Amino acid sequence: MADYRKMWEDLGMDVDTHDQLCEVLPQAFGDVYLSQENRPEGMDYYNFVVSEIHGVRPAELIEHQKKGGKVFGTFCVYVPDEIVFAADAIATGLCGGSQFWVPGGEKVLPSDTCPLIKASVGARLDRTCPFFRIADMYVGETTCDGKKKAWEILAEDVPVHVMDLPQMKREKDVRAWEEEIKDFKKVVEDFTGNEVTSEKLAESIKLINGKRKALKRLYELRKNENLPISGKDVLLISQIAFYDDPARFTEMTNKLCDELDKRVEEGVSVFEKGTKRILLTGTPLAIPNWKIHNIIETSGGAVVCEEMCTGTRYFENLVDETQTDLDSQIKAIAERYMGIKCACFTPNTGRIDDIIKYAKEYNVDGVIDVNLKFCSTYAVEGYLVEKALKEAGIPVLGIETDYTDSDAQQMRTRISAFIEMLEER
Amino acid sequence: MADYRKMWEDLGMDVDTHDQLCEVLPQAFGDVYLSQENRPEGMDYYNFVVSEIHGVRPAELIEHQKKGGKVFGTFCVYVPDEIVFAADAIATGLCGGSQFWVPGGEKVLPSDTCPLIKASVGARLDRTCPFFRIADMYVGETTCDGKKKAWEILAEDVPVHVMDLPQMKREKDVRAWEEEIKDFKKVVEDFTGNEVTSEKLAESIKLINGKRKALKRLYELRKNENLPISGKDVLLISQIAFYDDPARFTEMTNKLCDELDKRVEEGVSVFEKGTKRILLTGTPLAIPNWKIHNIIETSGGAVVCEEMCTGTRYFENLVDETQTDLDSQIKAIAERYMGIKCACFTPNTGRIDDIIKYAKEYNVDGVIDVNLKFCSTYAVEGYLVEKALKEAGIPVLGIETDYTDSDAQQMRTRISAFIEMLEER
Repeated sequence: MADYRKMWEDLGMDVDTHDQLCEVLPQAFGDVYLSQENRPEGMDYYNFVVSEIHGVRPAELIEHQKKGGKVFGTFCVYVPDEIVFAADAIATGLCGGSQFWVPGGEKVLPSDTCPLIKASVGARLDRTCPFFRIADMYVGETTCDGKKKAWEILAEDVPVHVMDLPQMKREKDVRAWEEEIKDFKKVVEDFTGNEVTSEKLAESIKLINGKRKALKRLYELRKNENLPISGKDVLLISQIAFYDDPARFTEMTNKLCDELDKRVEEGVSVFEKGTKRILLTGTPLAIPNWKIHNIIETSGGAVVCEEMCTGTRYFENLVDETQTDLDSQIKAIAERYMGIKCACFTPNTGRIDDIIKYAKEYNVDGVIDVNLKFCSTYAVEGYLVEKALKEAGIPVLGIETDYTDSDAQQMRTRISAFIEMLEER
Repeated sequence: MADYRKMWEDLGMDVDTHDQLCEVLPQAFGDVYLSQENRPEGMDYYNFVVSEIHGVRPAELIEHQKKGGKVFGTFCVYVPDEIVFAADAIATGLCGGSQFWVPGGEKVLPSDTCPLIKASVGARLDRTCPFFRIADMYVGETTCDGKKKAWEILAEDVPVHVMDLPQMKREKDVRAWEEEIKDFKKVVEDFTGNEVTSEKLAESIKLINGKRKALKRLYELRKNENLPISGKDVLLISQIAFYDDPARFTEMTNKLCDELDKRVEEGVSVFEKGTKRILLTGTPLAIPNWKIHNIIETSGGAVVCEEMCTGTRYFENLVDETQTDLDSQIKAIAERYMGIKCACFTPNTGRIDDIIKYAKEYNVDGVIDVNLKFCSTYAVEGYLVEKALKEAGIPVLGIETDYTDSDAQQMRTRISAFIEMLEER
């Protein structure tokens, strides 16, 4: 990794503590990723990005700030990046995927909070995440109890704008979300000093749709019998999508897809024939949370689709690009985002329909419903998801996990048994 | 207890299992309540109500149904009873305060769900709560992740109407709540076949305000140095308020207050001089959850105020009675309910202001912040509450508990130590 110490010091980071993270990540990445055989060449780009995850992109964001630009840190797929980019600002994900940050979060949050929230708050308070240090404003939302209340703690030293996501999906809720987006536009305009015009918004809608189309193209390739890429690698790409420059990400992902197209033509597969095809559904897998993919793909399975925020929920459905005035564009944005099927909504039966649809489209052998501990919405919905899958005759395994390694062996045992069961069907 | 077996059988209850609950309740009530000395005579009414809690009121509700009336089961202080009563229907609380029901809830809900939700769902699914059996419709709300998703499970066999409570308190959120109440009015009208006229609504506003005024009067009496009533007894009254006929409840509570007025004049106290005055804040204490009050009041403390849903949040602020047209009345109802300071809102700083205000008004020696396990909103907010109290120089003890007795000894130790610390100040 290049030397970013000076930059991190200037950001006010706790560099010594952060060094401990920098020491373990390459080893973990090597074990999980570089050990794979026959990886597409196009993965080199993502390998590079992850190897410098706290360096190269943060440096770009700081460059942007030096030119007077603003950076918005976001936590959730419901925050419309289109508005941010239309104001010549940058939206970036924030840290939250490692056990490294959890103890810091537990200093202020109850231990029975989901690891994603504890890690995010810990990364912020312990000053071990450059993205948290760089962001000029955090944008929160009311998608779950834990996050909703965590903003109040994070708001102590950085401006936080919270978007109130409706909890239902009636027509008036879509209208209410439209109003929230208009309020957000005003906040972004005031904060950046840049007007969000319909021309700028049309551009940013295309920009973010481009990213969605590239991810969709990548996922489509996984519908092939011969899998040209591992689930692990796709997960990494999905995770990087939250941080990378959108135009470059789209370009690199399309380039990778060109390579994968050839692989499909040539019948190349990165898995042995008969490897069981698994669809994952559940809570997001923030970088560097690769645990479940790694266990599945070293236990005789291949992850072929993720019905997750780091997965289909991130890229499914495009914003209508044909609208030309601001009101209609914002309406189109609201409608696209309200189409995301998060368990924070009641009811959320559309998600079950999606899972069953994907299970068929991706020709899966079984579904693993994997949820982070203490995520109530997904945990309760899991009961309904698993019931519906059983009724549809699709084998399903429910798993609850956190960021520690303490349950890895138990998970491996259960997942191996599940895959064996699929092999015997 | 009178013999209600036939009625319970007709309700389709699991009478044998329910018998087990009927066997233990009188003992628990005797130990906690009847052992108190010098109780006000007016408590006889509430003793009677609780001794027949699954009998006398359910029988009244069934009578009401026989005359063509409807019963709405509710879970939360945000559901406006005014609308229900204006349609000649009855709103009633539902079971959820005992460990007895928890295992039934755990059959379908994750074990790391709050005991109140698990108990409610268990009481419903195991058919051991007459109120759940009687209610023609359940009215849910989006106040927390656990409840929000639990409706989806409960909705499987009884109609559930969910009200989408905004998660913030901006002007537009109050308007959105007004719209929710209008929708609810429509649902209630359609379901009962009775129109909610402005005259009927004016009556029901007065009816429910009457209950609030009686409870407020009761609480005011606890501001006296000589406490004319125990905290335990007030808790019981607050709990019964959710089930009882509102007019009768108001009458009986005012009658009790007349007696307490005399006690105050005569300087009667149910506690020894020097007993430490405790304000409780946190999650609701549903009947028969008397654990914390019992421990405090047998450890040298007296509970003088509950900043809880079973407490001030239930009766604080009246609905404006001067409005005469439906729109203005509903606006007044919306504004009153949006004034409740539940941790489900972000931010919810008004609650902290209230706690500090009450601590002064009730002349408390210390605050105990008691939250049900796995209630994220109150748990996270607890960090801010306790921080603010410390800054204000008010001693505070944070406790997390559930419905089991397994932590009773540990709680007693901690609470005794807290009260001793207050005595040494």
